[in-house]
Order: sequence, then structure tokens, then C-alpha cells
Amino acid sequence: MEGSIVMNGGEGPKSYFRNSKLQKIFLDGAMILLMNSIEESLDLKNRTKIFSIADLGCSTGPNTFFCVNHMIEAVQQKYDNTLCPDDEPEFHVFFNDQVGNDFNTLFKSLPSKRQYMAAGVPGSFYRRLFPRSSMNLIHSSISLHWLQRVPEGVMNKDSPYWNKGRITYAKSPTQVVNAFRDQFFRDLKDFLKARSEELVPGGLLAMIMLGRPEGTSPPEAIHIHTMECLGDAASDLVKEGVMGEDVVDSFNLPVFFPALSEVEQVLDSFKQYLTIERLQEIDAPIGRLDAQFLSAHFRAILQGTVCEHFGPKLTEQIFDKFPHKLESFMNTKDFARPGKATHQFALVKRKDVPS
Amino acid sequence: MEGSIVMNGGEGPKSYFRNSKLQKIFLDGAMILLMNSIEESLDLKNRTKIFSIADLGCSTGPNTFFCVNHMIEAVQQKYDNTLCPDDEPEFHVFFNDQVGNDFNTLFKSLPSKRQYMAAGVPGSFYRRLFPRSSMNLIHSSISLHWLQRVPEGVMNKDSPYWNKGRITYAKSPTQVVNAFRDQFFRDLKDFLKARSEELVPGGLLAMIMLGRPEGTSPPEAIHIHTMECLGDAASDLVKEGVMGEDVVDSFNLPVFFPALSEVEQVLDSFKQYLTIERLQEIDAPIGRLDAQFLSAHFRAILQGTVCEHFGPKLTEQIFDKFPHKLESFMNTKDFARPGKATHQFALVKRKDVPS
Repeated sequence: MEGSIVMNGGEGPKSYFRNSKLQKIFLDGAMILLMNSIEESLDLKNRTKIFSIADLGCSTGPNTFFCVNHMIEAVQQKYDNTLCPDDEPEFHVFFNDQVGNDFNTLFKSLPSKRQYMAAGVPGSFYRRLFPRSSMNLIHSSISLHWLQRVPEGVMNKDSPYWNKGRITYAKSPTQVVNAFRDQFFRDLKDFLKARSEELVPGGLLAMIMLGRPEGTSPPEAIHIHTMECLGDAASDLVKEGVMGEDVVDSFNLPVFFPALSEVEQVLDSFKQYLTIERLQEIDAPIGRLDAQFLSAHFRAILQGTVCEHFGPKLTEQIFDKFPHKLESFMNTKDFARPGKATHQFALVKRKDVPS
Repeated sequence: MEGSIVMNGGEGPKSYFRNSKLQKIFLDGAMILLMNSIEESLDLKNRTKIFSIADLGCSTGPNTFFCVNHMIEAVQQKYDNTLCPDDEPEFHVFFNDQVGNDFNTLFKSLPSKRQYMAAGVPGSFYRRLFPRSSMNLIHSSISLHWLQRVPEGVMNKDSPYWNKGRITYAKSPTQVVNAFRDQFFRDLKDFLKARSEELVPGGLLAMIMLGRPEGTSPPEAIHIHTMECLGDAASDLVKEGVMGEDVVDSFNLPVFFPALSEVEQVLDSFKQYLTIERLQEIDAPIGRLDAQFLSAHFRAILQGTVCEHFGPKLTEQIFDKFPHKLESFMNTKDFARPGKATHQFALVKRKDVPS
């Protein structure tokens, strides 16, 4: 599974389960928007007795349960507000993430009192996960910035795209940045192709994405600088002679943070199958963050990937230095820039045409 | 999850993954029967574009993949043999087991080249797992002898059903045996009620069950004696003063092995919703078994449950003695009796009436 990112499993102090509060802050801001959009765009003309919902990139919770509950509430409200309250469907909810995700922890933490049948779906959301025309509502939160893979050539010193000394495109030459952007375009297309096949006609796809403010260039995304702090930590270890520079050169994070117009551009290429119901930036009221908190947050996300490349000993050393690198970055003007934490919301509807 | 049995996870030497060959022997004998029955009984009149299959009590594989492949092959054959080969559906396969099952290992071992979309479903199959009228073919292999719970009173010394000194009903008074049989009846009813709601009209339910030969009494089932060998091992530890007898008295395995007529009796109580398409005993060509092999097999199944009650130290001691107890039993006439390893096959079809 080249490039796949799997969150820390279990329920321990370093688990994603205990370190996903930042995502929750982003979700809080987006949930009302998601619920209102469902209310506006959901079509009950062709209603069925089973309403299938998927959360793609669910990890282990609790955020995924929070989202699912809100989506179900919005659908139920739509039924209540129409003339078919007695016609309310049964909900079948599919929780998807990579094969390496900790589904055991996800299943153990499923709410015991839930108004839906639950299933887990292992696999990359850049490919088909469900039968054709089987899903009524597909959702993905804060996952689509993870690419399928690091773009070709980025870790090859003979390539024009070689990203020497860095693990992201935060401070890279334009051609490297473009390689990441092109990969994002390809990947979002793969994602939308699969979803447009899986959705029933009239079915909805909701995406909450980490991005950057419109009008800024990719290296201006705050999230990419935050992640590059890990590269700075690794570079220090090179300077200290703990490891060779090739160990850093041969590692990159498969990640990209788009502007809204870039998302729109890809969505437009699917206008034969999908209509854009809503597409907008959202501000996240994240307030003042603490470097230790942020470090634990990123560790829960990145430890597995970092460890696979650097091994357990170097990984410990890198994450030891990480909070200090974050602290330094958080004192810069780049971090303090307003509008920095932009994320995006997109809702699209499957047209009633054969795919 | 009172009484729930969860197979050993992972892929290590004591895992179910590596110790489920005996179940495979039982399945080999039943697969042709299952395939032929699907061919005979599957109704393509109301065919849909998605064909949903569930395996209930799947554990971690590889047996569950073996069964699923055979079922899909049978359905495809049915399409090929009719006038609708171009109408072949997409397959959606649901793998179910208890919440505590090792779904991570199951998902990692999913065949990479498979002709179906896969999902895992956590939860007891004695309750609803899927939306109403959503499943075309439900299957359960060698799982239904596990009861929801140990019958009430069996581990209570003030009850007429107290099963003193034993962990199964293999050598128990009639009232204890009847308590286990009644629990089996209740549980199979719960199972059938849930399935009759989940199946589409015309949908099929296939059950491969460990049982005992028709005309024998419950304590004559060979499987129950094999399991009671574990109780004999525990009793030895009581005699040696390693633990008190109350530790054995307060433990029973939630298990029952029915005769075909008992299965039929429960199925008949659902004749308003289900028709019996096939119901028969099957002989398993298991040949001569080795006590060490059998011990490893049962350890993969029972270790978790035994350890939860007895703790890790006593569990090791019990399983150390277990092969010797098995060896002794395998030299008795009871073990050598022909027809002993009977298991059963049942195929039922959902009627086209509201549930």
C-alpha cells in the first residue's frame, strides 16, 4: 500500500482515538453546514426503504460516529419536514478506511445504542468500495489531503522533481510543488470516478477538506508547514550525524492542500455525472494551539508512516524534536496570518444518467 | 458479551487463522451440497443488480473466503445456465462475527483479487445485523452450536440446573441437558427471526451445523465429549489442589449439538416465513485424528474464553493437560463409534410474505 497513511490504532495515550480533537474542531464548524446542505439537497422522490451512508477515511472514532449521527439526524429531519415521516428508512452505515486501519478498536467503540446497522469496509477510497448505485450519502472528512502516493520522481535524485532535504513541498521548487498538485488532481479524479459509480441517482457526496485560502500558492498552506516541522526535526538529526541525508531525501509525505478553485476545477470535469450543490471555504475557530497538543495530534496520524521508513529509534528522536520545531514555527508571522486554517466544504449530487 | 466465543486472533502459531483445518474438512464435504442447493433453489425471477451475501460467524479466514468463493461460483453458474448470463450482478459480501473478533487480521488476509466488494459486520448473529429485505444469500458454517449464553442456573449451586464439576452437559443429569437444549431452541429461533427479516423474498439461508446423529441423546454427541476433556483437565487441577472446585463449577461452555429433528422442529416454527429447501445429515471424512492437532484446534477456539475465567496461568496448565485427556478419550469406544462426526446441512428460502 504505497503511500497509505494509517492512524495510530488502539485506545492508548498515543492513539488516534485519544488524539483527534483537532479534527473535531474542524468538524464542529462544518456540521451545521453539512446538515443544512443535506436538508436542502436530499431528494425524497425516489426514496427507498434502506438508506446507505458511508464515511470514507473514518479511522477509529469518535469523530466518525459524531459525523454519522449528524447525517442521520439531517436525513430524518428531512423526512419529518416532508409528507413522508412514516416512511423513514432503515440506515445502513459503512465505515471505510485503509486495510491497515484499526477496525477492531473502531468496532469496539461503536455506540451500543445506535439507530443504524454498521459495517466496516477496508480499502483505499481512491478505488471502488461499494457496488454500483448502492449508496445514498457518502461523506469524507479531513482525509482527501492524503494522496494515493508520493508523486513520481520526488524521491529520485536523477529526476527533475527531486525534493532534496524536505519531506513536503513547503519550501520546494515550483516543479516539485506542481508534481504534488498534479498528483492531487489525479487522485481526486479517481475518488470522484469511484463515487459517481457508487452513488444512486440523486445520491449525495459531502466532502470536508483541509485546504488553503483562495488566492494563495500551495506552499503558503499552513498545514504543509506544520507537517514540514517534522522534516526540520529529521534534518537536525542529519546535521548531528545521527543519520545520513539520503534517509530524509528518500522520504516524503503523500499530502496536498488545495485551494477551492482547484477543487472546483476537478469537480467540473465530472459535470456530466455530478452537480455541485455547494462549494465554499469554512473558517475553523481553532484558537491558540499548544505545541505539545499539536505534536501529539500529528504523532497519532504520522507515527506509523514515519516509523516504517525511519525505524523505531529514529522515529522517537524525530518526535522528541518535533514539538520544539512546532513551537518555533508557531512564533512566526506565517503561522499568525489570518485565514490560515481554511478548510472547505463541497456537496455534490449524482445526476440521473448512466455512468 | 456474556457467553460469546471469540476465536484466537492474529496469524501466530496459536491463531484460529493457522488452526482451522478441521473446520475446513467439514466444509469440504458440505460445499458441493451447498453449491448444488443454490443452483436448485436460487430464484432469478426477481433478480437485482446487486447480490448481497453474508457469512455469519466468519472468524478470520481462510475458511470464510473458501465458502464465499463457492457461493459466488454457484450463483454465477446459475446465471450462466439460465437465459440471463449478461445480467450477472455485482457481489457485495458481508463478513460477520462478534465485536471481539480479529477483523484486522480478517481484512489483511482478504484475497487481493476478488470479484466482490467486502465489508465486515461486528455483532452477535442472534440479533439483527442488516436492514430488512437486504440480503440475497446468508450462510453460517460451524457456528450455530455456540449459544448466546450458558443457560440460566447452570452455574448457580442453588438452582436445580446446577452443573457441578463439569463444563459441558456431556455427563450431566437430564435437567441440565434439557436446559442446554432449551437454550439452543431459543437461540436458533432468535437467529431465524433475525434472518427472516433480513432476507429478501426468495432469498436463501444456508446453515452448516455441527450436530449429532439422529436417534441419539445430546450427551452422546462426540463433540461435547471432546470439549469436556477440557473440563477433565480442569478437574485434575482441582484434585491436585491447584485451584478450588468452585472455579470449575462457575464455568460452562455455551454450546449444544443438535440432532436433525431438533433443527427441523425449530425451522417448522418459522414455516409462515421460511420454506425448508433441504435438510440432511452429512458425513465428514475426518479420518484418524491426532490429539496434538485436535488440542491446537480447540485452543484456537477456546483459549480466550477459558483465559477470561481461569486467568493466564491456570489456562496454560489446563491446555497442558488437554492433549492427554483427548488422547485417553480417543482410545474409548465412544470415540470410535461410527457416524459420530455427523454434521448437518439446512437450506431455507424466505417466503414472499411480510414479516
